[in-house]
Amino acid sequence: MKRRLLLVSNSTLHGGGYLEHCQQQIKDFFGIGVKRILFIPYALCDRDGYAKTARDKFNSLGYEVDSIHEASDPVEAVRKAQGIFIGGGNTFRLLKCLYDNNVLSEINKRVLQNGEHTWAPGTLQYPYSNHGNCYNPRMDGVPYMGSSAGTNVSTVSINTTNDMPIVYPPSFNAIGLVPFNINPHFLDTDPNSRHMGETREQRIIQYHEEPDTPSVLGLREGSMLLVEGNKATLLGTCKARLFTRGKPTTDFESGSDLSFLLTERQ
Amino acid sequence: MKRRLLLVSNSTLHGGGYLEHCQQQIKDFFGIGVKRILFIPYALCDRDGYAKTARDKFNSLGYEVDSIHEASDPVEAVRKAQGIFIGGGNTFRLLKCLYDNNVLSEINKRVLQNGEHTWAPGTLQYPYSNHGNCYNPRMDGVPYMGSSAGTNVSTVSINTTNDMPIVYPPSFNAIGLVPFNINPHFLDTDPNSRHMGETREQRIIQYHEEPDTPSVLGLREGSMLLVEGNKATLLGTCKARLFTRGKPTTDFESGSDLSFLLTERQ
Repeated sequence: MKRRLLLVSNSTLHGGGYLEHCQQQIKDFFGIGVKRILFIPYALCDRDGYAKTARDKFNSLGYEVDSIHEASDPVEAVRKAQGIFIGGGNTFRLLKCLYDNNVLSEINKRVLQNGEHTWAPGTLQYPYSNHGNCYNPRMDGVPYMGSSAGTNVSTVSINTTNDMPIVYPPSFNAIGLVPFNINPHFLDTDPNSRHMGETREQRIIQYHEEPDTPSVLGLREGSMLLVEGNKATLLGTCKARLFTRGKPTTDFESGSDLSFLLTERQ
Repeated sequence: MKRRLLLVSNSTLHGGGYLEHCQQQIKDFFGIGVKRILFIPYALCDRDGYAKTARDKFNSLGYEVDSIHEASDPVEAVRKAQGIFIGGGNTFRLLKCLYDNNVLSEINKRVLQNGEHTWAPGTLQYPYSNHGNCYNPRMDGVPYMGSSAGTNVSTVSINTTNDMPIVYPPSFNAIGLVPFNINPHFLDTDPNSRHMGETREQRIIQYHEEPDTPSVLGLREGSMLLVEGNKATLLGTCKARLFTRGKPTTDFESGSDLSFLLTERQ
């Protein structure tokens, strides 16, 4: 199994366009082998509008986009996907909708397991080169990209989302593509704030007061995690902060090898 | 039935001590008839420490405090309570613990229904005057005070909490003492922010994209809502913002009569 994940903190960086700050990483990630990407717009209410936004951006990068909400059979759409992208929005709505449409376990299977039976003949030429590595879809999982809520649902659980719980999903357990959790849009404490709500750091520490809780990687806006098999690399423009139960927090520079996170709880 | 609620946005205001900003309202609310208050510390991990903090504060205001976590039978503790205070912390942890200890419906009953069978003889002298009104505990519900998470759980549901979902409660449905929701620690949008996470306003609007969602009262820090029977009054130092599905948002000054909220969905 060689899982391939691009987990982005945020879809839009202040002053930039949609997915503009990570477009080079997106092209590197999906490469030239993937032609069509299955987009999952469940995190926003206006799925048509959201699919158009994603389609416009991915078209500009050379990819066709199928939106799962336009498919008559969402599970079949996942089974046929060459690549998957789950966009941001409300994490509770997104996770509930993944459960409601029975695609959660199917995405897990496609990303973590050999997808050979589902690749339509002729849609790919393999082996082909994917940023220097020989990438064989007969052996590798389907590449998965998430941003914000789409990053949250790729982890163990949505326990460390920042979102408002506007709907009740049947579980907080998520797709489980990595054995830790992520806090996207991670925000440093503002020492000048007069607001008395818990800081982000306090919230994550409260999570670790609960038993058997995995590490949480706080991805500041502008940062992302690339996972290739058992290698995890921090990309983007800023540091990430790691919270591990019972240990001091640690900041990691962009470019850091975070592969040790992939062995946690496995 | 005459319910009596004091729903406070935040336990501590910037620069002040614990419950300092609302201590006069607390004394007005519990009055001289209530001697002992049942404190529910479930929202924080350190219950002993939390009970001490609450006990110290309420003692200074002239009230004894029993903490529910020290009771051998939490349901019985609610049945015997003269007044209830649920403190802030993590709303998910709090609600799960209310369910786990089977006290959710019992609190509802005690606050909304005639509590006469549960008042121990001799603990109260009635009728007595409670800030000018003749208050008869044989007819009225037990006074309930909540702050922050304790305010969240008094409403229809915790769908509009700001907290991180660190544990999974069996439902988001809450005690239901009022027929609307509250967003405590309500925060205005900062026009200078470069952070791209959803603003508080955007999050509540996303909640109202879901069907059949009740109004949400955004209580800024320093504000609180006093409910006496079918009368609701905004107290404190700042305005509150009301979000109603399909209507423009409205700000209300401190002192406003918000009784119309109590007839919603009833």
